[in-house]
Amino acid sequence: MNARTTGTVRVVGTGLLGTSVGQALTRLGVDVALADQSPSALALAVDYGAGRPASDSDTPDLVVVAVPPDAAAAVVAAELAAHPDAVVTDVTSVKGNVLEGLRRAGADLGRYVGSHPMAGRERGGAIAARADLFVGRPWVIAPAAAGDAWQRVEALALDVEAVPVMLDAAAHDAAVAVVSHAPQLVSSVLAARLVDADDTALALAGQGLRDTTRIAQSDPELWVQILGANAAPVAAVLRGVRADLDAVIAALEQPEAPGSRRTIAEAIAAGGVGVARLPGKHGTSKRYATITVLIDDRPGELARLLTEIGALRVNMEDLRLEHSPGAPIGIAEIAVLPEAEAGLVAALEERGWRLGAVE
Amino acid sequence: MNARTTGTVRVVGTGLLGTSVGQALTRLGVDVALADQSPSALALAVDYGAGRPASDSDTPDLVVVAVPPDAAAAVVAAELAAHPDAVVTDVTSVKGNVLEGLRRAGADLGRYVGSHPMAGRERGGAIAARADLFVGRPWVIAPAAAGDAWQRVEALALDVEAVPVMLDAAAHDAAVAVVSHAPQLVSSVLAARLVDADDTALALAGQGLRDTTRIAQSDPELWVQILGANAAPVAAVLRGVRADLDAVIAALEQPEAPGSRRTIAEAIAAGGVGVARLPGKHGTSKRYATITVLIDDRPGELARLLTEIGALRVNMEDLRLEHSPGAPIGIAEIAVLPEAEAGLVAALEERGWRLGAVE
Repeated sequence: MNARTTGTVRVVGTGLLGTSVGQALTRLGVDVALADQSPSALALAVDYGAGRPASDSDTPDLVVVAVPPDAAAAVVAAELAAHPDAVVTDVTSVKGNVLEGLRRAGADLGRYVGSHPMAGRERGGAIAARADLFVGRPWVIAPAAAGDAWQRVEALALDVEAVPVMLDAAAHDAAVAVVSHAPQLVSSVLAARLVDADDTALALAGQGLRDTTRIAQSDPELWVQILGANAAPVAAVLRGVRADLDAVIAALEQPEAPGSRRTIAEAIAAGGVGVARLPGKHGTSKRYATITVLIDDRPGELARLLTEIGALRVNMEDLRLEHSPGAPIGIAEIAVLPEAEAGLVAALEERGWRLGAVE
Repeated sequence: MNARTTGTVRVVGTGLLGTSVGQALTRLGVDVALADQSPSALALAVDYGAGRPASDSDTPDLVVVAVPPDAAAAVVAAELAAHPDAVVTDVTSVKGNVLEGLRRAGADLGRYVGSHPMAGRERGGAIAARADLFVGRPWVIAPAAAGDAWQRVEALALDVEAVPVMLDAAAHDAAVAVVSHAPQLVSSVLAARLVDADDTALALAGQGLRDTTRIAQSDPELWVQILGANAAPVAAVLRGVRADLDAVIAALEQPEAPGSRRTIAEAIAAGGVGVARLPGKHGTSKRYATITVLIDDRPGELARLLTEIGALRVNMEDLRLEHSPGAPIGIAEIAVLPEAEAGLVAALEERGWRLGAVE
């Protein structure tokens, strides 16, 4: 593979993202100069194949700042000043506050291009890094000014096999507020209801609750930084959530009042319309037929099922696994094209698989 | 298999649940008498092997009322009156309102036992029915009075291979409010934010958003009945959600004010504490190590991966599949016991699999 990226790439911050970028570029033969304020973190990233330690004589064409969100603007400004011929990008998950910090610092915005590779987290360290981290993930590119500086960042994104998406900083921040930051908080405040729930109630939890609360397991410290940096757009989305919630609560408090049932029905229906807009294979239960297969919860059974489905030459569009509480059985939900459903059901039943129904 | 259930079981309402109960019992040799106000629905259930049409001379030991929630109390009262030696149960997903309706009607509560088999939906029809529908699922049993009437319902639950859970009606309704009904509405009001979102924002949606909004695709008409029947407990849970949301919104509107960061951190942390209380294999990312494998998005690749993992004698605790937008690649997240992680990573890499990192 030939790299699109030319010259030396300087990576500042050798956590998960910085080390992963270094590994991916090093694999392509690019000269990667690594810097970190922690000498031991730097040495670890070198050990993990992310590049060589930076030297004062480096003249990088591109600088990738991969430091925590709170520090990003200051480090980008310093790198722009120290490397007057380099394009500088950062990889934090909020872009407007970095740009604002650079404007206040009077930085050369013609050479700054914001990035948000939507993979991994700002933390995790070099140990968690992988050259494959960005494969198939969106990489948002947010130029701060006219000019072609963004092309060096696009080359980087393509070299690490990400999917470049051009957005300005404000549009990016509004987008991640709605698709990531507000969902995180909503999941958290919902999951907080479980803190005082009875054990018997928790024993009745099904897949729906597990799905809606899965991301509530995230790191509070990291999310305080992210949400603090994108506060206004997230608050705007959450005010919309609260307005709908207010209407639903009022309807539930007077369930027999005129209009109450309609309010609840419209809230549920609007959610369905929203989910249907999500692109891709997921969230598309209407486009695929779902077959549920009961499998013994022991090694090899799922592999045997998928091997048989493969042998039937049926393409599985999606797979979800679920375990039954208190029963030694698992449930596999398999999504296939509707025209494949009847044949697959018949073939699996003929082969002795027990088919169930979705919860 | 010998059935624990004895005598004739009368099933009133031959939708998904009624027909599935009939199929499971018929398979065990139990005499099942089916009734439905729709002659064609009844004929369909008979065709699907759920039992025989009921006759006026039947003397059932057990009556299973499987009609829509709005009709359940009236039908249960009529069955109690018509079959003075029978225990009568219903299968609707809210129990308090049925009990209240029966009390108002002066029904014989000593022979009524509420049920909530947590499988399937109240709709779907006989065509969707399966004798396996209840296997491994919780079946809540809510006796309305002292006595041993509940034992006939427990025998039924065990015969259909469900997991009996004893709860009174109020405890059941509070439990499903927190683990099912409130999450449904929260998911819906969150997903409603996507209705007016930009296409570019939707293109950045990741697995977190897809998970939190998956159940928002549910049927509004059915949910209006369920939520209307359980309005007060659901409203109580949602008021808790709203109080936390109010605090978070206020903090985001003044992110630099004293205490704001702490409010946000505590909201996220409380969600983590809540999720950690969920029993079972899911929601337990702390107990399992997760390995991410990149797989070509073509038939047979996942089966090949799982076969190799099985051959390595590693027990897979959980599996999640994810598709990368815009890339012909899938991502499999495999949960294993922490002590199995290092060996599996090494073995898979040796076999040429590409390992990635979790989003």
